[in-house]
Amino acid sequence: MIRPSAKIASSNQDVWTIFNTAAAETPGVVHLGQGFMKFAMLATNSKSHSFNPPDFLLDAAKKALDIVSCNQYSHTKGRERLRKAIANVYSPLFNRKINYETEVVVTAGANEGMFSAWAAFLDQDDEAPRFFYVSNIAMNGGKLVYCPIHPPSDETKNMSSAEWTVDMQELRSLVTPKTKVITLNTPHNPLGKMFSTEELLNIGQIAVDHNLLILSDEVYDRLDYTPHRRIATLNPEFASRTLTVCSAGKTFGATGWRVGWLIGVPDLIKYVSAAHTRICFTVNSPLQEACAYALEVAEEKNYYKQTVSDYSKRFATIRTVFDDLGLPYVIPQGGYFLMVNFSKVSIPSGYKFPDSVTVNRAKDFAMAYWLLKEIGVVAIPPTEFFIAEHAHLAENYLRFAFCKDVETLKEAVCKLRKLEAYIH
Amino acid sequence: MIRPSAKIASSNQDVWTIFNTAAAETPGVVHLGQGFMKFAMLATNSKSHSFNPPDFLLDAAKKALDIVSCNQYSHTKGRERLRKAIANVYSPLFNRKINYETEVVVTAGANEGMFSAWAAFLDQDDEAPRFFYVSNIAMNGGKLVYCPIHPPSDETKNMSSAEWTVDMQELRSLVTPKTKVITLNTPHNPLGKMFSTEELLNIGQIAVDHNLLILSDEVYDRLDYTPHRRIATLNPEFASRTLTVCSAGKTFGATGWRVGWLIGVPDLIKYVSAAHTRICFTVNSPLQEACAYALEVAEEKNYYKQTVSDYSKRFATIRTVFDDLGLPYVIPQGGYFLMVNFSKVSIPSGYKFPDSVTVNRAKDFAMAYWLLKEIGVVAIPPTEFFIAEHAHLAENYLRFAFCKDVETLKEAVCKLRKLEAYIH
Repeated sequence: MIRPSAKIASSNQDVWTIFNTAAAETPGVVHLGQGFMKFAMLATNSKSHSFNPPDFLLDAAKKALDIVSCNQYSHTKGRERLRKAIANVYSPLFNRKINYETEVVVTAGANEGMFSAWAAFLDQDDEAPRFFYVSNIAMNGGKLVYCPIHPPSDETKNMSSAEWTVDMQELRSLVTPKTKVITLNTPHNPLGKMFSTEELLNIGQIAVDHNLLILSDEVYDRLDYTPHRRIATLNPEFASRTLTVCSAGKTFGATGWRVGWLIGVPDLIKYVSAAHTRICFTVNSPLQEACAYALEVAEEKNYYKQTVSDYSKRFATIRTVFDDLGLPYVIPQGGYFLMVNFSKVSIPSGYKFPDSVTVNRAKDFAMAYWLLKEIGVVAIPPTEFFIAEHAHLAENYLRFAFCKDVETLKEAVCKLRKLEAYIH
Repeated sequence: MIRPSAKIASSNQDVWTIFNTAAAETPGVVHLGQGFMKFAMLATNSKSHSFNPPDFLLDAAKKALDIVSCNQYSHTKGRERLRKAIANVYSPLFNRKINYETEVVVTAGANEGMFSAWAAFLDQDDEAPRFFYVSNIAMNGGKLVYCPIHPPSDETKNMSSAEWTVDMQELRSLVTPKTKVITLNTPHNPLGKMFSTEELLNIGQIAVDHNLLILSDEVYDRLDYTPHRRIATLNPEFASRTLTVCSAGKTFGATGWRVGWLIGVPDLIKYVSAAHTRICFTVNSPLQEACAYALEVAEEKNYYKQTVSDYSKRFATIRTVFDDLGLPYVIPQGGYFLMVNFSKVSIPSGYKFPDSVTVNRAKDFAMAYWLLKEIGVVAIPPTEFFIAEHAHLAENYLRFAFCKDVETLKEAVCKLRKLEAYIH
């Protein structure tokens, strides 16, 4: 028996395995769990569903497959055409000229980009406070330090995600001499919170005061229902210590393409690039080429505005059932997740649960399991994103992904109406 | 200034950056450096160049792009259709029934697969002897221990890669209580060596005696000019401790697709899968789907045999110039690299070199640089794959990749004839 490394051995079964497996075993469920785009019809067959992924992206991928160089290794930093497109699109958003040779690296999705950033900067036992729980900091020898986002005092009525707040004194108190990286996620998964300029200025100042790297996960940056603010743009001192993480999968509705990128000053990007080269070597070429084309034409095709408008309609569809049931929810400022407070829902006593959702798990796991099995809708228990100590902040909620076509969402609404019998 | 992690900070500029950059700056060079497939004409336009990637693979990718689920997240272990295809193709090659649910994991290329395996099994300071130098063992806290492959006593005439051998006593002497993983590469890059059954039995026995994991990098397994032997198949005790790494990029001439897979018993695969989920989450979906189809039909389309036959022709094209020049080379048993002994070639005295190829570099770096600039052919200095202590074993050689179309190889042959003036 070969013993696994300590960094892997201790891991819980992940939430995706538990709920995707349970969903696969349960006929007829509507899947609002994982944040992938689901559409009842092929994108190419129906214009009403055509924004996932857009036809111009798919056509570009097919063309790329006919180009010999697009099937072979790309530069480890990413294809030149894609890096140029990224620099062109983001320079105005960052209020500065981004150098495509030294300030951009393309990664195998944002996930591998974040992993590469931690690999590049974390040494054994370096501390990394963040607002969103993930286990791959530990994979790089780092120690996760979790800074909670607190709910508003009244959770019995609908609230904006802006009302969930960080206590800046608390964040400052978590910084020690071992602290190296502060990881931010805005728009936030699962809350949909977009950090305000004031919050970003406070966080940035803490980073400056303690010489911390800021890793800003902004993968939902193009899905903003109020204007997205970027910490890297607020102050040159912030810019010099911020890595911004973006995602073609989120932006273009193609989560299965695994193309993301990081933007930052050369002294940061070069180390991420070095780590990425060793981890993945390079990112798949044909889909990079297609993403380059998509970035080149998205604005003129009105893609971003149309996408935000479409997501607003999707949100409007799913929220109605929770309004009717009187279950309060968090109105997201960005992204495609809806957090709904299930405190009022009572699971019948004696209901049998598997160990995977009860042992070492907060009560949202059991609620999500029951919802899947008895109501037929898959949602994700949000405490997966929290450490045990802070599970109480989120365990009354379930996360619904509304990156699905309106027909799928309407089907979910029908099923969710059955909840009425369990609300007292 | 944010300090990088120790695991990244110490890195040399990598060989690809040095030589790809120099090649880009030098007009008209023929690139036999990096092992990507180059063809003078589009695969779809000319049947004589149609094995890179094959049309059936490209067509399958285009079809996959029209399937909504093929653009979204796949299972973290890989798409079910691909894992089933892998199990079906490899079960007869492994002489056992491979379970696609528990014994296969699809990774973002073989590189990320190897990285995930080291992440899954290496703890801080665990030792990992191997026959091929890479720096990403250190990224996972491991300590690389290098076991050399020794050249035959007479390197003045052509030799088979089989004549390069491992001293099994030497390998055994490198094993300590901290040793955890032994990494094997067969067919070997850059030597083209295919380990013999006897060598594999000896290596496997050392792994059994010391309870070591065997990570067997077999990415060139379908490019075998003598029959490929798999260590996992030689003994059930070996099978229980071996992870075999394969590559769709190498197999189907699509190095830019970043699809690979590992095969092993469930108790090994589950930890690799856990690491891979944290590093990349999942692999790009449309190209996975296409690879599944390709594996399903490759045998009936006679793809593997045709590919080996085509590579043999390419090798025959490139070797002629070295025969004519009297430069001895290593005849590969597998893969698409040719190691040529350049001892007889004299660079004119006083030739100016940049620091990147002289400081902390063996003499093959200077030779490769001069060859690129003055002869117009890119080759790779093989000591990149060796530690400094063993650089003397390979510094007289240059590595030529012959995964290029015959026209490109003929152009290289023409240029290489100019070497005659420098051979005395």
